[in-house]
This record gives sequence, structure tokens and C-alpha cells, in this order.
Amino acid sequence: MQELFVIKIGGNVIDSEAGLQSFLKDFAAIEGNKILIHGGGKIATKMGEQLGIESKYINGRRVTDDATIDLVTMVYGGLVNKKIVAQLQSLGCNAIGLTGADGNIIPATKRPVKEVDFGWVGDVESSKLKVESLKLLLDSGLVPAFAPLTHDGQGHILNTNADTVASSLAVALSYMYDVRLIYCFEKKGVLENVDDDESVIKIINKKTYQQLLSEQKLFAGILPKIDNAFAAIDAGVKEVLVGDANDLIQNTTGKTSGTLFIN
Amino acid sequence: MQELFVIKIGGNVIDSEAGLQSFLKDFAAIEGNKILIHGGGKIATKMGEQLGIESKYINGRRVTDDATIDLVTMVYGGLVNKKIVAQLQSLGCNAIGLTGADGNIIPATKRPVKEVDFGWVGDVESSKLKVESLKLLLDSGLVPAFAPLTHDGQGHILNTNADTVASSLAVALSYMYDVRLIYCFEKKGVLENVDDDESVIKIINKKTYQQLLSEQKLFAGILPKIDNAFAAIDAGVKEVLVGDANDLIQNTTGKTSGTLFIN
Repeated sequence: MQELFVIKIGGNVIDSEAGLQSFLKDFAAIEGNKILIHGGGKIATKMGEQLGIESKYINGRRVTDDATIDLVTMVYGGLVNKKIVAQLQSLGCNAIGLTGADGNIIPATKRPVKEVDFGWVGDVESSKLKVESLKLLLDSGLVPAFAPLTHDGQGHILNTNADTVASSLAVALSYMYDVRLIYCFEKKGVLENVDDDESVIKIINKKTYQQLLSEQKLFAGILPKIDNAFAAIDAGVKEVLVGDANDLIQNTTGKTSGTLFIN
Repeated sequence: MQELFVIKIGGNVIDSEAGLQSFLKDFAAIEGNKILIHGGGKIATKMGEQLGIESKYINGRRVTDDATIDLVTMVYGGLVNKKIVAQLQSLGCNAIGLTGADGNIIPATKRPVKEVDFGWVGDVESSKLKVESLKLLLDSGLVPAFAPLTHDGQGHILNTNADTVASSLAVALSYMYDVRLIYCFEKKGVLENVDDDESVIKIINKKTYQQLLSEQKLFAGILPKIDNAFAAIDAGVKEVLVGDANDLIQNTTGKTSGTLFIN
């Protein structure tokens, strides 16, 4: 099978113009099949404040009301996504900006209201992804760049976690490609000592993960990312890597400087 | 050659939620190859006011400064485009939302500054459109929906008139398809008597156009649309029609109720 990189960048990269440019230059230089998934960054919050849209949180999780879904559709799906596309084009990378609604690539369900109504938040319908059209784009040399938005099939855009969009796409595409999923974030990788940026754990497998957990060596913020990584591997993704956006070149050419997850 | 409808809707359709829904329902029902191009509507102006972005005009034409290009990228490329995509998806139409930057489909040049600096406004580079990727999408049953944005190849999104985006795409695709270009607007067609909505001129050719001009029967606002229509026909488009958005079904099934332009 052909190799495919599925690469996710978070808000911290988006928020720095120089950081984004440098990242996109590295991304454009990657040879072969690749897909980008970007987060939203702080610009949505800033724009929301200017528009008088209050950010609402329940248990630390953002609630997506009517005004907020319009806001993130504008900012993630329009401003951020199309700026990235235009910049990639200027770097000779034939990007095409998409959301999960486009081509019905990522169908989702509005999160059921239990104790909390999260509003227009979408849970991906993992078994229903339409990745055939992505293969078509990739085969003709196009580079899909996704905003973290999905849809409910009933006419509504839904807000979906960018990590989840990345892993869902990676899993669905693993039937057609050897997928290498890379999460770029603000650290060099998973750290053995959170105060030492150089203490990157090179490889984590399920056994060493349990060990690290029992020794309480991992900071809580990284745990969802690790669970996500192992879930992706269990579902067919060949390799998951967590690393610094600045290390993309190394991380895609075998000289890995981040943390590699294996079974 | 296969038939292809290139259909443009203006801001008046976008601005009415019921009008848009009704239009999209009709659009979704059209069989065969089709592309939608949408204008922006008043929502960009409204959003701009809320964000404190002043609309600037020189000689009645909007100037697209830094704040305004971000605004229209958000609103046209994000909010309006993705809402249309999600609604079309709910109607069983496999839409994919695009700008001219995506896949480098519509390269443009920032309008040269002469007496007036129009800012981030793009003049389409007609000879450089990359419509092969559009054919790929159409062949696999996807329905491209374009926001009126292009790019300069140097990393900048540009604001481009939606009528021009529509005619540029129609012309570029006329080498591969029998293209029928339909401009939907707020009148039933070109009127012989502007005060009588039923006085639609059924067919205009170049000869009758000169006659109508010399008799000063046409209202000034329609003249750029007519010039655009004849330019598209001269460049290979099979048929251009100007009609009411509510009459889309008739206008795509031969029972034309608008104004048809022929050579």
C-alpha cells in the first residue's frame, strides 16, 4: 500500500503567523500523499468577543450555541482554512480546503443531550466516512486541508475536535494506505519529566504506557492524546507520532524526534 | 459532449433563508453535471458593521482592504459556503464547497493600482484556470459550490465578482462540456418594460441587442450582465440564460421562462 501522512496542527501553530508560515513550508516539502487537519486557534475567541458572542463552558468544555457554530464555521472553515490553502498554493502545494460536510466526507451526529447540552457539537460516525473522494483527490496530486467541522446530514454544520477529525480520517484511510498519523503540538513529544523539554520518551507501547501510568509519570493533559493514539493504532493506523510542529521534517523522514506509539 | 449547468445565485437569494432553501431544493433536483456559484449577500456588510469594519466605496465599487478581505473570506468562504454545502447534502446533493484558491482552480491577479487602489480584488487569469480537477469531481458525482474568492498564487485570497467567477468557470469548462450558464437574479429575465415584470424578452441575439440598445429600452443595471453573457458565448459557452431564482426548474428543463442569449 502507498504511504499517507495525516498531520494535525493545533491552535498554537495557527496563532503565530511566523510559526504557521514555517510549518506550512515544511508541510509543503513533504513528498507523497498527505492530508492536513488544523485546529482553530484563539482567533475564534477574539472574533467572538468583537461580535459580542460569549464563550460558554460547561465542565471546561466549550458549548457550541447557534452564534458559536456560525462563528467557528466562519473562522475555522473560512478565514483559517482558506488562508492556509492560499499559503500552501504559494509554496507549490496543491491544497484543497475542506470540512467534513464537503463531499459528505465526515458524517457526524449532534451529541445527544444528557446532563449537558453541548449544542452543535458533532460526534463522528466512524463507520460512515466517505474517504473514496479523498483518494480521488490524493491520486490527482491534491492535498486536502481540513477544518475541524463536520455535519449532521440534516443541513447543520457541527463543531468537532480536531484531534478526533484527524484520527477518524487516519483510521478510515488505513484500509487504502499505510497511514502515519502525526499530532503536532507545543512540546517535542511525551515527556518523562514535564519540567525537562528534552526528556522525550522515544517509543511508547501499550505495556510501557501502563507502566508510565502506574508510576504517574505522565501529565494529565497528554492522556487523551495517548488514548486517541492507541485507539487509532488498534483500528489500523500504521504509526502514530506526537511531536513538535517545528520538527515536522525530521518526524516525516525517519529521524523521528518525537514520541512514537506502537502496538 | 456532456451537458453542464453553471448556475450563479446572487445576494438577494442568500439573504432570504426561505428563498435560499427553496432555491437549493430546486438546484439539488437538477439532474446531471452542475456547479453552483454564490454571491455574498448583505451578511458580510452586517458582520463588518458588528466588527467595526467600515465598508469603503470608490466610484460605487467596494474597496477590499486588509480587514475586508478577512471579512469576506470568513463570510463568503466559510459561513455562506459551508451552510450551502450542508443544506445541499441534506437534500441528497453531494456538494463540495470551494474557492478559486482550492486546487488552484481560479488563479487571479491583484487588480493593478491605477487611479484607484481597489485593494485585494482579483482579476481572473482566464487562460490559467485549472478545471481538470473540477472534471474529476464532476465525474465522481460531486457538485462544486463556489464562493466568489480567488487567489494570487502568492498566498493571498482575492475578492472577485461572482458573475465573473461564474462566466470564467463556464468558459474554461466549455472545452469539455456543453455549458449552459444561468444567472439567477431578482427579475424573471431582461424586461422590455422595467415597470412590467412580465415583459420578459425571450431571446436576445447580438443584432436584437444592438436594436434594444439604440431604442434605449434596457435599464443600465442589466448591461454588464448582458455584455458578460455575450462574452461567454463568444468564448465557447453554449447558452446563457438570465432568469428568476424561483424559475430554476423551468429554466433547466427547456421550458425557459427567462431571457436566453444566443449568438
